[in-house]
Amino acid sequence: VRTALRGIGTTIFSEMTALAQRTGAVNLGQGFPDTDGPAGMLAAAQAAIVGGLNQYPPVDGLPALKEAIVQARLARYGLAYDPATEVVTTAGATEAVAAALLALCEPGDEVVLFEPYYDSYLANVAMAGATHRAVPLRPTDDGFAFDPDDLRRAVTGRTRMIVLNSPHNPTGKVFSRAELELIAQVCVERDLIAVTDEVYEYLTYDGLEHVPLAGLPGMRERTVTISSAGKTFSCTGWKIGWALGPAELVGAVRKAKQFMTFASGTPFQAAVAHALTHELDWVAELTKSLQERRDLLRSGLTAAGVRTYPAQGTYFLQADAASWGYADGAALCRDLAEQGGVVAIPTQVFYDDPASGQGLVRFAFCKRPEVLSDAVSRLSTFR
Amino acid sequence: VRTALRGIGTTIFSEMTALAQRTGAVNLGQGFPDTDGPAGMLAAAQAAIVGGLNQYPPVDGLPALKEAIVQARLARYGLAYDPATEVVTTAGATEAVAAALLALCEPGDEVVLFEPYYDSYLANVAMAGATHRAVPLRPTDDGFAFDPDDLRRAVTGRTRMIVLNSPHNPTGKVFSRAELELIAQVCVERDLIAVTDEVYEYLTYDGLEHVPLAGLPGMRERTVTISSAGKTFSCTGWKIGWALGPAELVGAVRKAKQFMTFASGTPFQAAVAHALTHELDWVAELTKSLQERRDLLRSGLTAAGVRTYPAQGTYFLQADAASWGYADGAALCRDLAEQGGVVAIPTQVFYDDPASGQGLVRFAFCKRPEVLSDAVSRLSTFR
Ligand SMILES: CSCCC(=O)C(=O)O
Ligand SMILES: CSCCC(=O)C(=O)O
Repeated sequence: VRTALRGIGTTIFSEMTALAQRTGAVNLGQGFPDTDGPAGMLAAAQAAIVGGLNQYPPVDGLPALKEAIVQARLARYGLAYDPATEVVTTAGATEAVAAALLALCEPGDEVVLFEPYYDSYLANVAMAGATHRAVPLRPTDDGFAFDPDDLRRAVTGRTRMIVLNSPHNPTGKVFSRAELELIAQVCVERDLIAVTDEVYEYLTYDGLEHVPLAGLPGMRERTVTISSAGKTFSCTGWKIGWALGPAELVGAVRKAKQFMTFASGTPFQAAVAHALTHELDWVAELTKSLQERRDLLRSGLTAAGVRTYPAQGTYFLQADAASWGYADGAALCRDLAEQGGVVAIPTQVFYDDPASGQGLVRFAFCKRPEVLSDAVSRLSTFR
Repeated sequence: VRTALRGIGTTIFSEMTALAQRTGAVNLGQGFPDTDGPAGMLAAAQAAIVGGLNQYPPVDGLPALKEAIVQARLARYGLAYDPATEVVTTAGATEAVAAALLALCEPGDEVVLFEPYYDSYLANVAMAGATHRAVPLRPTDDGFAFDPDDLRRAVTGRTRMIVLNSPHNPTGKVFSRAELELIAQVCVERDLIAVTDEVYEYLTYDGLEHVPLAGLPGMRERTVTISSAGKTFSCTGWKIGWALGPAELVGAVRKAKQFMTFASGTPFQAAVAHALTHELDWVAELTKSLQERRDLLRSGLTAAGVRTYPAQGTYFLQADAASWGYADGAALCRDLAEQGGVVAIPTQVFYDDPASGQGLVRFAFCKRPEVLSDAVSRLSTFR
């Protein structure tokens, strides 16, 4: 294996899902829903298969999908993109982020990541021959927060890019407008590219607003905005994602991705075009229901004496391992899976130095209420 | 854009398909069938969507698909693989090749390619920070052939890998057992990894046998064998591919691909598992029919005084631009599209130095007979 990839192991999600399967534990590890997306979207996928949409789509994606992506962005955020030159579809947001890093970073460049970070970012930085600097998000009673000075210090003369994930996995944080303005200011001052992973853009709770970084002053021309259908429409296995941005940046992403997968999922592209156009009410219901399910998990854990942090968005809730008497979240997760009947993710795997996140564990609440209730009772009795 | 990618343009296939759409020409450019795969496979995809197979598959692929891949290889070639450790599924063969290059080459390594080569290989070599050396395949009346001395000379102390594509796109060549034995000998002698792109493995004509390089002495342990469902089952837009090989090499491919797309196309994975198990008779019929369609195109062109080369496999036939009075295949393709009503691919785009392939054009014959007849009559009258 290439030296740059040697330190990179199997993604934690595979490991924990395999553990759940082996032990029969309730799987609150890997973030995927246990209920499928809107019936109309599933029907549209079937219709596309029968209707002969089974060969290569254009490398940028089906025109109907690009149009639907642009219309949905415009309607929701007032941000306009040219479907002909400013959109490219990808095999999920994962491919879009990988292509952006491979296409826009030179070997030796630095990338700023907020820590904890989604595991693929670090691997993509390594593949690009770049290195990263981490800005810590620290848990508080009001959620996770960063120190503006940490951000400023993380930017050096070699910094090429900031990767921002909001709503944020694994913390559940939704970056506030004030925080985003600060990040935008740094990007503009230091002439950085921003790559934003917004796959949970529709999944924010308690009326919190998702603010796209591209909408802030000076950011439209330097931001690659990435999102996908997986979380919005509960079809994580279809891997229909996209990148939006100025033609030059999107052109770079296209350049890399056309030689990573070329293009994929033709019938699903048609189905997602339908969903973005006709199923946003379904998404509003999903968001409401996910908020209720978050509350179910959070109040259950609180009642059991577990300290949790606010989950403002995403599928995920953070809790203190110490509430179960564990200093080490990894040890807790192992024992929980083997003896407690619940699989969770030790948050420390998303840090440069595991010690920084050692006390936290991540639970996914994108499961049916009865599954969550079952998990709560297991977690409440586990000692 | 990253320096290494600057020389890389838009893939020729997008360009030519767009040209076909604009001019209304018959599209014999990009290689995709105009008839879909077996009804049973399409039904299996629909059933998977309805049946709830819409979330992430395991990173390696659905167990049923891995099992079906291994069984099909064993039955056809007598080659055995362990589905647990020696198979990983990918977003088409494109991702498998990209992941193999990114995972197995160090920056500065050299990769040997047979020229002309499929365009994504070169881009993948660049992404990996590696460089390549080309072994020319020269057109003869019996098909395309290489000089063993060219192969030996292409291997240096920095060579890490040979990428072999057989049946070969864009020439239609099927590498003979004797040629493969020579390649294997070089790989073993010089301790090279072989990456084989065998996506046309079922599409060989006139009874010619496809020989997997991995089956030759000393090769099993050093070969990453790549194939996919797209061409075998006429579902190029689904992008279900795979890599087979020793656990260490496949583990490296997994390492890269889990952070390129993670995993994709869950319902299509189930459908392709069905197809590999139940639809191989359909594939035999497809192969027979493609041979007839090759003959239709080839004899039509011959009757019109065009010199063509044997297409032993794949979707593609090579012809001499000179037969239409053109020294430059790119000029012929432009005029053919604009005035002749047929889109073809100038073979020169698959060479380091376009001059080497300047006299050749590639026609795809994976289209319905009436489409090919129409193309033949347009190509016969074009002056
Ligand atoms: C691609 S598997 C990981 C799913 C996910 O986003 C998560 O669990 O964090
Ligand atoms: C991925 S588009 C190219 C299709 C193909 O294999 C070809 O036309 O050579």
